[in-house]
Amino acid sequence: MIVTIDREFGSGGRELGRRLAEALGIAYYDKEILEEIAKKSSYCLEYIESVSESKPMSLLPIHYGQTLSFGIDLTMQQNMDILAMQNTTIRDLASRSSCVIMGRASGYLLRDMDPFRIFVYADDDFKVKRFRKYGDENESDRSILKKLSEVDKRRRKYHEFVTGLKWGTPINYDLMVNTSSADLKALATAIAEYIRSVFKKNQG
Amino acid sequence: MIVTIDREFGSGGRELGRRLAEALGIAYYDKEILEEIAKKSSYCLEYIESVSESKPMSLLPIHYGQTLSFGIDLTMQQNMDILAMQNTTIRDLASRSSCVIMGRASGYLLRDMDPFRIFVYADDDFKVKRFRKYGDENESDRSILKKLSEVDKRRRKYHEFVTGLKWGTPINYDLMVNTSSADLKALATAIAEYIRSVFKKNQG
Repeated sequence: MIVTIDREFGSGGRELGRRLAEALGIAYYDKEILEEIAKKSSYCLEYIESVSESKPMSLLPIHYGQTLSFGIDLTMQQNMDILAMQNTTIRDLASRSSCVIMGRASGYLLRDMDPFRIFVYADDDFKVKRFRKYGDENESDRSILKKLSEVDKRRRKYHEFVTGLKWGTPINYDLMVNTSSADLKALATAIAEYIRSVFKKNQG
Repeated sequence: MIVTIDREFGSGGRELGRRLAEALGIAYYDKEILEEIAKKSSYCLEYIESVSESKPMSLLPIHYGQTLSFGIDLTMQQNMDILAMQNTTIRDLASRSSCVIMGRASGYLLRDMDPFRIFVYADDDFKVKRFRKYGDENESDRSILKKLSEVDKRRRKYHEFVTGLKWGTPINYDLMVNTSSADLKALATAIAEYIRSVFKKNQG
């Protein structure tokens, strides 16, 4: 039983993912994927995190595009190396046991394992409030929205780089959930019940 | 408790809507809306049905666009009349009791009643198979897909005419459901349970 969750930043996707994993009694992988890569490689966690959901080219300083050098090859190789490890780690974790995996194009990477693919989104008002709750209370809506959209832009580009498919397009998901006026606990319970019935049917 | 369902033609949205109404023990309105209009007016059911989810202008013969005449005024007035009655009928039904209402921009029309808005979609393969099951077994995929897309195009245009919002855009719905590999019965049960918890929370 594999569940993959793509999520807009600030939508509560992580909380929903955790609750869903708990309700289903299965593993939950988000930052845990990066820790696995850190264990297996010489890269530090912070660097892996900066690469994890970015398009590798966009991580290069702009001037590299004009003057090709050893630098570009090395950085590029490192980044591609980390992303390749991320993909193999995701496959590895998914083959070990049932789990919920957050983002990182996992719905596409694991498509032969027939995952249940969820996309979590919310309106700006909800996301701003949620972001503020966990951060600086005095930050303006505009500044928060800019941060949210930067993270989503990275995720979208990474997703399209890996899959060639659009992030957040309904047909690429089994369920699209708007958390704006949702009770995440009740939502996780309902989705868990439904997923159980889907996997039972597919096995039966 | 108001639930509105927009649906791609062939996606099984109607079956899901019926099952959901049954699971929640509330009324279900689809063609029933048209029957109400027929009762209250002099229009026949077939004519009402042809207007029901169409953009009124697209119902006029093409040459009307060039030569304005009494004809355009009369047809246009009739169509607008039916659509206005449809809107008041939807409001009327929704104020009488809890219900599931299919399409007709009802999620938007009833927005002050805070409906739970669902969009039901599926991949082409699923929709073609489902359509063929209820129709001519020998009809080609291509011919079926053309019919499906014509109905969806009408629904999309009608929705945009009434709401000014895009049909099927996630942010305008609380839940988007892909029925391609779904068990509609289990799905209806899970959604019903979730909707109950949402409305309980909002009342509490």
